[in-house]
Amino acid sequence: MNGNNPLLEAFNQTTYQLGGHGKRNTKVLKEAFQHIDENVDSDNYGAGKVIEDFQDQMAAYLGKEKAVFFPSGTMAQQIALRIWCDKKGLKKVAYHPLCHLEIKEQDGLKELHHIESILLADHSRTIQLEDVLNMKEDVACILLELPQREIGGTLPDYQDLEAISVYCREKGIKLHMDGARLYETLPYYQKSAAEICKLFDSVYVSLYKGIGGIAGAILAGDEAFSNESKVWKTRHGGNLISLYPYILSADYYFKQRLHKMEQYYEEAKELAGFYNQCHAVATKPLVPVSNMFHVHVDIPKEKLESILIAIYKETGIGLTTYVKETSATTCYYEVSIGDRYSNIPKDEIRKVFQLLDERTGAEI
Amino acid sequence: MNGNNPLLEAFNQTTYQLGGHGKRNTKVLKEAFQHIDENVDSDNYGAGKVIEDFQDQMAAYLGKEKAVFFPSGTMAQQIALRIWCDKKGLKKVAYHPLCHLEIKEQDGLKELHHIESILLADHSRTIQLEDVLNMKEDVACILLELPQREIGGTLPDYQDLEAISVYCREKGIKLHMDGARLYETLPYYQKSAAEICKLFDSVYVSLYKGIGGIAGAILAGDEAFSNESKVWKTRHGGNLISLYPYILSADYYFKQRLHKMEQYYEEAKELAGFYNQCHAVATKPLVPVSNMFHVHVDIPKEKLESILIAIYKETGIGLTTYVKETSATTCYYEVSIGDRYSNIPKDEIRKVFQLLDERTGAEI
Repeated sequence: MNGNNPLLEAFNQTTYQLGGHGKRNTKVLKEAFQHIDENVDSDNYGAGKVIEDFQDQMAAYLGKEKAVFFPSGTMAQQIALRIWCDKKGLKKVAYHPLCHLEIKEQDGLKELHHIESILLADHSRTIQLEDVLNMKEDVACILLELPQREIGGTLPDYQDLEAISVYCREKGIKLHMDGARLYETLPYYQKSAAEICKLFDSVYVSLYKGIGGIAGAILAGDEAFSNESKVWKTRHGGNLISLYPYILSADYYFKQRLHKMEQYYEEAKELAGFYNQCHAVATKPLVPVSNMFHVHVDIPKEKLESILIAIYKETGIGLTTYVKETSATTCYYEVSIGDRYSNIPKDEIRKVFQLLDERTGAEI
Repeated sequence: MNGNNPLLEAFNQTTYQLGGHGKRNTKVLKEAFQHIDENVDSDNYGAGKVIEDFQDQMAAYLGKEKAVFFPSGTMAQQIALRIWCDKKGLKKVAYHPLCHLEIKEQDGLKELHHIESILLADHSRTIQLEDVLNMKEDVACILLELPQREIGGTLPDYQDLEAISVYCREKGIKLHMDGARLYETLPYYQKSAAEICKLFDSVYVSLYKGIGGIAGAILAGDEAFSNESKVWKTRHGGNLISLYPYILSADYYFKQRLHKMEQYYEEAKELAGFYNQCHAVATKPLVPVSNMFHVHVDIPKEKLESILIAIYKETGIGLTTYVKETSATTCYYEVSIGDRYSNIPKDEIRKVFQLLDERTGAEI
């Protein structure tokens, strides 16, 4: 094989791609701004119509008193936990071992905020009521991620969520939602965002994953919490003079895609079905509960890459840009459904999975 | 007077405005992206051609090994000081009492990084060699702001800068530059950016002040410093999936305006001259050393506002959007020269200052 990343190269040559909304290029920005009047004023250090209108809209959607726009979820969530820790005078929080704050933020929570994390549940499953009941230490806040991305976008039962919420309120523990992919869970839960958010004291949602904006996040809660979050936003260096490139794009794509979450969910179930018909392949979860899942394959990484490259070339359809090794003989990758999936002729997709089944079957 | 802010309202009705580049509206973004191909890929969490090319360009311009793009100067500078403090094992830095970190960042440096600040010099002047020599405590880093915005954009003598740099290197104290308006000082110093940056271990420059971009900052230094700054950027929540709306705009306006700094400087001196011919008015500095200065007026704030509103209406030229009280009988405002000034007929400007002189003269 030639080149640095032959799988990615082959993917980039395909006509169709099964996941995502499309390329993250400047077209995303240009399209969002195409119909925006050039006289629309910038926001100004967190003030102004552009940012305030969007925050009000998101607060209403999430059923919270106030919403604050942040450049990133990393910033928003550290700040949420810091506020709850300061309020209780206890620098301790609990979350899943695969929580974004634990594995993706260079330990910002610990290095900047000196907050200790208690890990609940394990790599195989989401946090359940049991885990919370069995916690040996008091914490200021529990963070639940809906859906839990690093284990394929799995979700706790709604009854469990409700029970955890009730328990936390009784015990004076704040409940924070990492809702990076909250919208994507609504078709499965058959609830509104506001109904789910009601169980939580503070909520972060992303504006570039399912929504497909450029970047940015919303942190929502009551008024006192939100005011405090703005002070910390300044401290973190996130109170930019202008955030409108993100805000106006988020607003545009929110309107374009929020109503498509049901479609993405149905398509994810269909696509997972295709995968699960193949030899040596199993999705996690087996039946998706959002627009995403992980594809686990009992074949060595390099072998699977060769198979995929051949299929991309034969069919013109790309399945993934990467494969991660989980052991010498197993590997996996993540799939998230967006706008692209519905553009692909179903017969072409069937052909891809017929080929995949034949080739993986030949390996075992 | 009607309305909440009649001075701003009157300003917004004027045909010409003496300061700045123009309105901060979405036109700024749209113009920058007009000629950018929609297939240009987004940066991706700090990687990719868009961000790397711009960082390389800025590193070369500043004469430093590496440059890192940050969403804000607030984030960049706290991180610079944190790195130098960690390196020395001493959480103490020195800067001017009107330093941005001391007065504009909700104490982020103290609340997030637990770094103590030693204040050098006072509200009337910039830090000089004497102040550094007389420092009683050791510090990890000294921050110098060029020019010192809060006292009208004043500058230390270049010889003093050099002497401070030599002294700091001898004593093992790192020297950091708050160069939010560094480009604007080059015509006065008659030096290249790289020549000035050579005196410093780390340098922050802004991309939206003199340059007129949308937001964003560069932090430059040696390779080890820059690598460490990227880790802290993630911790702060500043390593966004996409920063290209800021980067490509910064690149565009950098090319549009860098060569105009000499013009802005000459115009600032001219405009300050007009102000200083008026009764009860004095600029600080008396002769600007960059594109900016403060206008101090020995007249009560409300009185000056009434005078200005009348002049805006009579001449169609706006001087300032606000006036700040300094005492019951004195006030001031800031002026920064940008693209707008050169568009105004000189006779019209003379008429404005003739009127201002008459009206302020009548008050004293």
